[in-house]
Amino acid sequence: MLQESIIFSTGQREGLYDITAKVEELVKKSKIDRGIVTVYARGATAAVMIQEGWDQSVQNDVIAFLKRSIPAGVWDHDRQDGNADAHLKAGMVGPSETIPVIKGNPGFSTWQNVFFCEFDGPRSKREVVVTVVGE
Amino acid sequence: MLQESIIFSTGQREGLYDITAKVEELVKKSKIDRGIVTVYARGATAAVMIQEGWDQSVQNDVIAFLKRSIPAGVWDHDRQDGNADAHLKAGMVGPSETIPVIKGNPGFSTWQNVFFCEFDGPRSKREVVVTVVGE
Amino acid sequence: MLQESIIFSTGQREGLYDITAKVEELVKKSKIDRGIVTVYARGATAAVMIQEGWDQSVQNDVIAFLKRSIPAGVWDHDRQDGNADAHLKAGMVGPSETIPVIKGNPGFSTWQNVFFCEFDGPRSKREVVVTVVGE
Repeated sequence: MLQESIIFSTGQREGLYDITAKVEELVKKSKIDRGIVTVYARGATAAVMIQEGWDQSVQNDVIAFLKRSIPAGVWDHDRQDGNADAHLKAGMVGPSETIPVIKGNPGFSTWQNVFFCEFDGPRSKREVVVTVVGE
Repeated sequence: MLQESIIFSTGQREGLYDITAKVEELVKKSKIDRGIVTVYARGATAAVMIQEGWDQSVQNDVIAFLKRSIPAGVWDHDRQDGNADAHLKAGMVGPSETIPVIKGNPGFSTWQNVFFCEFDGPRSKREVVVTVVGE
Repeated sequence: MLQESIIFSTGQREGLYDITAKVEELVKKSKIDRGIVTVYARGATAAVMIQEGWDQSVQNDVIAFLKRSIPAGVWDHDRQDGNADAHLKAGMVGPSETIPVIKGNPGFSTWQNVFFCEFDGPRSKREVVVTVVGE
């Protein structure tokens, strides 16, 4: 078993951050050949999404779609913190994904990358916990 | 490894129920220091969401958002059971979340709690299965 | 531990494919009595959803709801591939679910089945990786 955090900052209110290379590196470091790797965003205004990462277009579409579906400023929680939309987006996308480990690598398909989703940035410190379980 | 169910009743058609303390208790009972804990709602009209739990506002917003996005009574399945909206909400939120176990506790951030989402209550018996894997 | 892929083809652009029996078979084959089973769709235009499978109605409603929420042809990525809606649907539903293994079987409730969601078919080869961890 290996458990390690990826720590980074985010530069905008909303955006997808590709953490695929980091997750691959940690799976290799674990020396686990077969099993699962779980990726978890620590933050109630952030999430983890598996998505195509060939260029920026799908990432832009994810942000645009969520903005359109979950408007800002119209919710109960906005009277407290003004970030209810970020919480709703985070809850709907979800903070966790579990990917199989196959022959020592995360079992992504050709077009699957793993992204940290920032919905309430910029933040000086965001954390994703990666846990690899297997044999 | 530990596997145990949380059993409870729900009092309204829709609502979020905070099960964080119960999940923490089971992780401690497992004596597992490092690993993962999976939380699973047994029911096709229920789900599990990780979300802020400081007060009721975000929970209200989740219910209001889902009601607005997934109206009741307009779907195929409503001709059978009248609860298609509950199934759609459950499917989109999803019944499972996987949280890292860090130093003997679930690795929630300060504002992350774990909620059972009821979409077709009230029910006399709802069940969430908690499984802790690690070392 | 057991890890095995389910391979199949899909016949339409969009549809839910019930893989419950296959997942149950692999859990039995693993001889694992207690633990977790993770189900992962390898493909950035596909997903895994746990949902009622009694008849076709809820499956139809899932496809209809997603079509209504995520229209086709209006996104950045459509200028490249014309399938941005498939990517958005896949990202929102998500490729992974983790189900407890209870007494040698996946711990689905009576009305929970597990479905592969095709959002950009037909495809001659789709793959779902099933990993069973436990004791």
